[in-house]
Formats: sequence, structure tokens, C-alpha cells
Amino acid sequence: MKSEYGLIEYFSRVFKPLDKKLLLGPGDDCAVFDLGGKKALLLTTDEMVEGAHFLMRFSSPELIAAKLVRMNVSDIYSMGAAKPAACLVSSGLNGRLPRGWVERFARALKRESLKFGMSVAGGNLARARELHFSMTVIGFAEKKRIVRRTGASPGDLVYSLGTMGGSRAGLELLVKNLAGGKPGERLKNFFWRPPLFPREARLLSGFATSMLDNSDGLYKSLGLLSGLNGVKVRVELSERFADKALLSWCAETKKDWRKYALAGGEDYGLLFTVSPGNERRLKNTVPACYKVGEAEKGKGVFIEGYDGKIEAFEHF
Amino acid sequence: MKSEYGLIEYFSRVFKPLDKKLLLGPGDDCAVFDLGGKKALLLTTDEMVEGAHFLMRFSSPELIAAKLVRMNVSDIYSMGAAKPAACLVSSGLNGRLPRGWVERFARALKRESLKFGMSVAGGNLARARELHFSMTVIGFAEKKRIVRRTGASPGDLVYSLGTMGGSRAGLELLVKNLAGGKPGERLKNFFWRPPLFPREARLLSGFATSMLDNSDGLYKSLGLLSGLNGVKVRVELSERFADKALLSWCAETKKDWRKYALAGGEDYGLLFTVSPGNERRLKNTVPACYKVGEAEKGKGVFIEGYDGKIEAFEHF
Repeated sequence: MKSEYGLIEYFSRVFKPLDKKLLLGPGDDCAVFDLGGKKALLLTTDEMVEGAHFLMRFSSPELIAAKLVRMNVSDIYSMGAAKPAACLVSSGLNGRLPRGWVERFARALKRESLKFGMSVAGGNLARARELHFSMTVIGFAEKKRIVRRTGASPGDLVYSLGTMGGSRAGLELLVKNLAGGKPGERLKNFFWRPPLFPREARLLSGFATSMLDNSDGLYKSLGLLSGLNGVKVRVELSERFADKALLSWCAETKKDWRKYALAGGEDYGLLFTVSPGNERRLKNTVPACYKVGEAEKGKGVFIEGYDGKIEAFEHF
Repeated sequence: MKSEYGLIEYFSRVFKPLDKKLLLGPGDDCAVFDLGGKKALLLTTDEMVEGAHFLMRFSSPELIAAKLVRMNVSDIYSMGAAKPAACLVSSGLNGRLPRGWVERFARALKRESLKFGMSVAGGNLARARELHFSMTVIGFAEKKRIVRRTGASPGDLVYSLGTMGGSRAGLELLVKNLAGGKPGERLKNFFWRPPLFPREARLLSGFATSMLDNSDGLYKSLGLLSGLNGVKVRVELSERFADKALLSWCAETKKDWRKYALAGGEDYGLLFTVSPGNERRLKNTVPACYKVGEAEKGKGVFIEGYDGKIEAFEHF
């Protein structure tokens, strides 16, 4: 079988939309369907599978619901000025679940969805040996204010909102059943409840030239940005990339925070580009962002002064 | 864990929409989202899981794609005058798949989706030991022409489009690796490519009082109709319920076709109700339909002259 990226590239080509109303098909964070007038419908789906994304021994229905909602809603926000509206949830369940688990999951799903303005509109139940939870979210955006993954040019500056590597470190603690002290708690929280940036995404929709969520780790995400836009991305690593909890946990355990930040995955921060002329505007309107690097002519991702190995995160 | 129906009932209650734009939430064939103006957005999702819905030894990527599309699109059609518009596909895949399987699946998905006027707008890939394929379809309908599962009154006549039990018999042949001769071929085709009734559903949207697809077998589907509408459904069994292939296979193998028709499942025909005053109109506009029974005051489903056991189909 092809690699995940090989398959996604293949699918994007095979499914190349034939329908003119489909303004954007596979390959971006969301599909975009033209509703006529100013509005567009956004569609996205994401899934958590037992064994691949979580283990039952460190999960709870409340945590799975929290993450399932965030990982999907993140795709809506990363389209710019966009709002989630409703979701469908498809679950593969089995008899190994403790009594009351499914009911707790349902109540948590409702609660978590409401935090982002969504109702649970429907779903499906299937019998499965391996638990899995798939969500589809619809959202709405003004067509003019949608930011795609494409649109960056050489010379654009690459910025990030949200730190990197925290979720991966949290998962490591969970899998090894380690507490990790106070930073450990915070890292596990990055895994289960990654922070999202709806307000900032809306502000950025005025001038970001491209945007995606950082769900596959910085190195892979920048690889996508580079490939889709035909640019080379030069990265200057800085401790700003990592949350303080990651830095402190890495200092204590003698790990390299840069590996987590580069190869992490499941951080769901926003990666975006702006033209140099808009840097001042960016700093004024979205002060929490920080510079990751620059887009240049060429191709590939170059990490300045980093000669370590990047073991990219593989969901698949 | 509660039964599938217990859970669906629980979910419908927990997820009771808080959003006024959600005209219909969990509990019908589709969720209905108000787009303003005359149009509404329809949303539905359905899934096929290895072991629960199919076995690899009798499947192919082309057959799975064909059924996945039909079982989802069927939910759109059973809302009345409704059209599918786009779909998302979430797949749980593993390394046991033969070389080229995923690529064949993608091409088949595109082909099958186009037959129903849909583009594949996006999706997700996950790693899973157990294969699963989840699809979400969006469609559009005029609000006024949507037919819900509710709306039937005592006195209404219950009708069907499409025969029953064929898919279950086909699955039995597939699981047992039996050819079953010419009827066998036709029965297996009912399992993989159940016939759908978009044109008829559109015609019925003028006057059917309620409608659902018959995906869980007649007995369970009528149970839903009865429960949701607060009516008793009296059924008069007739050989018209069964396709000729099912009758001939049952005659040959000394099986009772009525068990397949009542408890079958995955037939995806339409069950609907009309007021007696509309029976002539029905026969003129949709001649392929046939009468299943009548709705009366009371509750439950009563099968006239049938004292056999009904082993209802359980997906779950």
C-alpha cells in the first residue's frame, strides 16, 4: 500500500471535483461547497481508532468526545472566518465497554459540541471489535473570507499560532503510564484538549495567504505547505515553538524538545503565511503568533542548524 | 450496553436539537438543516465494518464502494424529493489489503458516487486492524417537500417500494460460499447493489404522510413507524413482498420466504404511508408500489396469520 501521503495525493487526483459547486475537494482542511450567494458550506471528517489514536486504558468517554470534537472543529477554523454548525458521529462499538460508557460518551459529545456552537445532528452505530469514532462537521463561511492551503508565494513569512510537540509528549506519558508532574498534566491536556484559535483565524482571514492546521507535526505540515505552494520553507527553530511544559519536561528528562516540536502531531495549532508587507498588521492584530520561517523559491523544508533525525508522526 | 434501538432512542433524547436551524436531528433517515429560503441541507452517515457487515473473502473494493454509496444515498431519497450532492469517506485500513486494493476502491467510489450525482468531496484515512468504511452524504431538498418518518395517522395505508428479504438471502449465500444458481446471483446483487427509488420518492413527496427506508428489515422498520407515530400496524403478508428470486430459492431449499421478508435487513426499499383518499393517486403515479398493511389506533406490529418466529436482523 502507498504511504498515507501517497494515498492522499492519489485520492486528490482521482476525486478531482467534477461538480462546479464543489469549490474545494480533497486536499485542504475542509471541502467547500458553493451554496450560491455569499455563503459556502464547509465539510470535514476525522476519526479516532482504538490502538492507532488511543488506548482504552488511558481514555474515558469524556476525553474521547473532547478530542473528537476539537480535531474536527480545528479543520473548520483553519479555513479562516468559518463557524462549525452541526456534526454527525459514527461509532464502532463493542461489548467490552463498561456499563454506562456509551451514555457518558453521548452526554460528553453534546456538551463538547455545544462549546463550539454545534448540535449533534445525527450519526450511526455499528458493531466493531475495534472501537472507532468518526465525526463529520459542517460549517459555514463567507466565500470571500476562506483561506486555503494554497496561496503562499516565495517571500511570504510562515507563522504559527499554538505551540508544537505538547500533544506528542502527552501521548508518550499516557502510553507509558507516567504522571510527569505538573508539566505532565499540561502535556496530557495538549493531547486530549488541544487549544484552538477561532478568533485569531477569523482575524487572519483578512490577509493570511495560506493556512492549515498543524495536525501532522510541523515538519510534515510544512512539507504540505511547501509541496502545495511550490515553495521552499526555511525554518529557524526557536524555543517559542514549544510550550513551557514541554521545555521543562524535556530539560528534566534530557530529551530534545525540538524532536517533539518538529515531528509531534495532533497539536491542531494554525500554520499560515503572510506577505512581508502585512507583518506589522499581523503583530498588531494577532500578537500571540510567532514566526516559524520564510517561504523561498525552490522546494522542500530546511531546518536551520538542526541535524537531528525527524521521526515524523504517523497516524497511519 | 443497551440494545441498538435503546441506544438510538437514548441518543435522540440526549441530542434533541437546541439549534433552531436544525429542523430535524437524530431519529430520522437524515438530519435536516435550514439554509434559509426554500432549501434545506440533508445530512446522513452510514458505515460498513469488516466482520459485522461483510467479510473480505466475499468482498471486493468495487462491491464495497457500490454498497457504501447506495446505503447512504438511500437515506437521502427516503426524505422525499431530495438529491444527494457530495460525500465524504472515512476509511480504516490495514496492511493486509492486497496491492492496489485502495486505489481500486477510490476509483470505484468515484464511479458509483457519480451515478447518483455526487462528487467525493473529502475524507479521512486511519490505521485500523479491522477494516471499516464510513460515508457521510450531504443532499438538498425543498423544505416543503421533505417527508419525515413521522406524520402517519390511524387509517393510513402502509405501502412499500422494493421487495424484501433478498439482501439477507444473498448474504447467507455469500457467507456460506454457495452459488445458488441464477436466483443466487440475483440475491447476492440485492445485498451488494440494492435497488433505490429516487424518482418514485420524488413523486411520493407530494402526498406520502411518512416514509423511511427499509434498511433494518420489515418487522423492525414497521416497529419504528409504529413507535414514532403512535399507531398499530397490521400487516397482511403477500408474495408480492418477495422478489421472484427469493421465492424460487426458498421453494428449492424449503425455506420460508416470509422469515427473510420480515427479518431481512439491508433491502433499502421505501416504506411509506398514505391516507386512504390518496390510494388511487398512488396507484396511478407509482404503480410499482404494493400494499403492506394499515395503520390503526393502538401500538405494535401485527402480522396477520403468521405464527413463526421473527429473528430480527441485528447490525449491532
